[in-house]
Amino acid sequence: MSKYVSYEQAGVNIDANDEMVERIQSSLASTFGPRVIALPGGFAGLFRLDYDEKLFKKNYKNPVLVACTDGVGSKVQLAAKARKFDTVGIDLVAMSVNDMLVIGAEPLFFLDYVALHKLEPALVAELVKGIAAGCRMADCALIGGETAEMPDTYRKGDFDLAGFAVGVVERDKTITGKKVRPGDVILGLRSSGLHSNGYTLARNICFKQARLKMNDVLDELDGTTVGETLLTPTRIYVQPIVKLLTKYKVKRVVHAMAHITGGGLVGNIPRILPKDCNAVLKKSSWPRPKIFPFLQKAGPVEEDEMFRVFNMGIGYVLIVAADFADSIGRNLQRWGEKVNRIGTVTAGSGKVVLKN
Amino acid sequence: MSKYVSYEQAGVNIDANDEMVERIQSSLASTFGPRVIALPGGFAGLFRLDYDEKLFKKNYKNPVLVACTDGVGSKVQLAAKARKFDTVGIDLVAMSVNDMLVIGAEPLFFLDYVALHKLEPALVAELVKGIAAGCRMADCALIGGETAEMPDTYRKGDFDLAGFAVGVVERDKTITGKKVRPGDVILGLRSSGLHSNGYTLARNICFKQARLKMNDVLDELDGTTVGETLLTPTRIYVQPIVKLLTKYKVKRVVHAMAHITGGGLVGNIPRILPKDCNAVLKKSSWPRPKIFPFLQKAGPVEEDEMFRVFNMGIGYVLIVAADFADSIGRNLQRWGEKVNRIGTVTAGSGKVVLKN
Repeated sequence: MSKYVSYEQAGVNIDANDEMVERIQSSLASTFGPRVIALPGGFAGLFRLDYDEKLFKKNYKNPVLVACTDGVGSKVQLAAKARKFDTVGIDLVAMSVNDMLVIGAEPLFFLDYVALHKLEPALVAELVKGIAAGCRMADCALIGGETAEMPDTYRKGDFDLAGFAVGVVERDKTITGKKVRPGDVILGLRSSGLHSNGYTLARNICFKQARLKMNDVLDELDGTTVGETLLTPTRIYVQPIVKLLTKYKVKRVVHAMAHITGGGLVGNIPRILPKDCNAVLKKSSWPRPKIFPFLQKAGPVEEDEMFRVFNMGIGYVLIVAADFADSIGRNLQRWGEKVNRIGTVTAGSGKVVLKN
Repeated sequence: MSKYVSYEQAGVNIDANDEMVERIQSSLASTFGPRVIALPGGFAGLFRLDYDEKLFKKNYKNPVLVACTDGVGSKVQLAAKARKFDTVGIDLVAMSVNDMLVIGAEPLFFLDYVALHKLEPALVAELVKGIAAGCRMADCALIGGETAEMPDTYRKGDFDLAGFAVGVVERDKTITGKKVRPGDVILGLRSSGLHSNGYTLARNICFKQARLKMNDVLDELDGTTVGETLLTPTRIYVQPIVKLLTKYKVKRVVHAMAHITGGGLVGNIPRILPKDCNAVLKKSSWPRPKIFPFLQKAGPVEEDEMFRVFNMGIGYVLIVAADFADSIGRNLQRWGEKVNRIGTVTAGSGKVVLKN
């Protein structure tokens, strides 16, 4: 309990707990920047706002804290079934930090809640390893967490994860979608696969309908196993988006952004669209990762339903001033994203229109 | 999705979800102060740090953010069994905000994660009502949350809760226990009962050993039902402690504090005790709520084990300069706490010594 910031536990046996703490220590430390204040044995995680430091002062005159929480839904069941625990933590971080980006915020720190049937130090260590990996990708510090052993709530081998992220945005740089107007261009950043949504349906199709096994290797999925494909971690868009917002912070050409989670493109884009605009998307304008046509056929699932449940290959959307669409796309590509111009904004009624 | 800050959901049916959102709206709004920024349909919760406002500027020159996360352990199982959902949210808030107080921080905002078998709007509304009540007691805003429907992880009727609190403390006012020295007085604030720890043991004793029912009325518990006694919400110590720290902010006579959770007095006080000091507690110096002797006898449970698992009547501990112990105690009592002088600090080795 003495070498990390604040990783508490409830109702766990002391030896297993000590072993767990030892194992997760280096994971936590790997995410700490100079703004984390170490507090041995502490009751809480501490993070400086760095008023004193020049960089921070310059960036934030009127900072607003932005907070998000999310889980990874039934992807945890899949990880439990595959006994693969080292990447679902990346999903956990992704779900919260990608949400926060949408406002224009940059992540500062993260905390996790892990609840499980019985404390297995190796399992928790793997989970936290993934969470720490996600935090490094998102440039945020993992400053605390809680591990709860609850044998009566969780079945043997089962667990759940919840994540909490806090970030900061300059008040008058908050991105709310108000500037979106007809003629704006919609850019899509490619997803890495299903991300963390639609797993109840995907598991049903793969394991009940198609009776596949976790280790089945499928030609339709480029020779990877079902488990590998389904457990591919959610892409974290923090680094390119924060760079982009810094680069265009004077011009303000990013009018709105959306993280494509449950509800897909048709469910999430309306959350940031003015009521008098539509988003017209051309479905053929980006390639679909093979898992989507595979699920669609194996279900079978109707095309509309696919678009309501899954991200269909686009994990994050930007609505930008038309004149800057090309340069924004080029920059994002240079920073490692696969970018497609997937549609435009028209006059309308706050809806997403899908065209072939 | 349009009238609250950011309460998202995963994999739930739309009608049930709309009903839930409607029901929780007023709960969320009841916790909002002027620093919450409304963001209709938003992806995140926003909280201003108010650099512009005089009060805030005066209080924080070099603010450090303090973050805590916790669940309520198997008290949720008890709430599920009793079908009583409106107070376990108070426990959830209490577990995180009381932890944060220990550093000297005041809570700013809170987020919750609710995971359950199936979305029942009335149930979630009751849970959030309790969380909002806890937030009002803790003077913090409930700015976001997540409700996850996970039928394969949670059994019918079961659920889990995780909470996440962020607060702020002036950097050089952080309370770490470094100032604790022999001669300091230990004050205990009375708990409201079991709070949120030891429920695996308490449930075992009540329902398996003693074969009680939730509605059994017991003379030993002053004629209340077993359910009422066990579900008494955790006391939230925010308001008196924040007042106290404000009152003594120049004199700095509060040397350390501890929130008494899992591990009891003997497990939590060492977390803030210097390695060359002991905390000597006189067990007869405060009255024990009747639930403790009841459990001890019904188990039976050894006295030492009782002290390792339960708070035994003291929910929060302050270690203060001896000269100020009386005036601090009087002030806390005036602000509604029941306070006892429960011990003193001696030279030692970082341990708690229990005396009769």
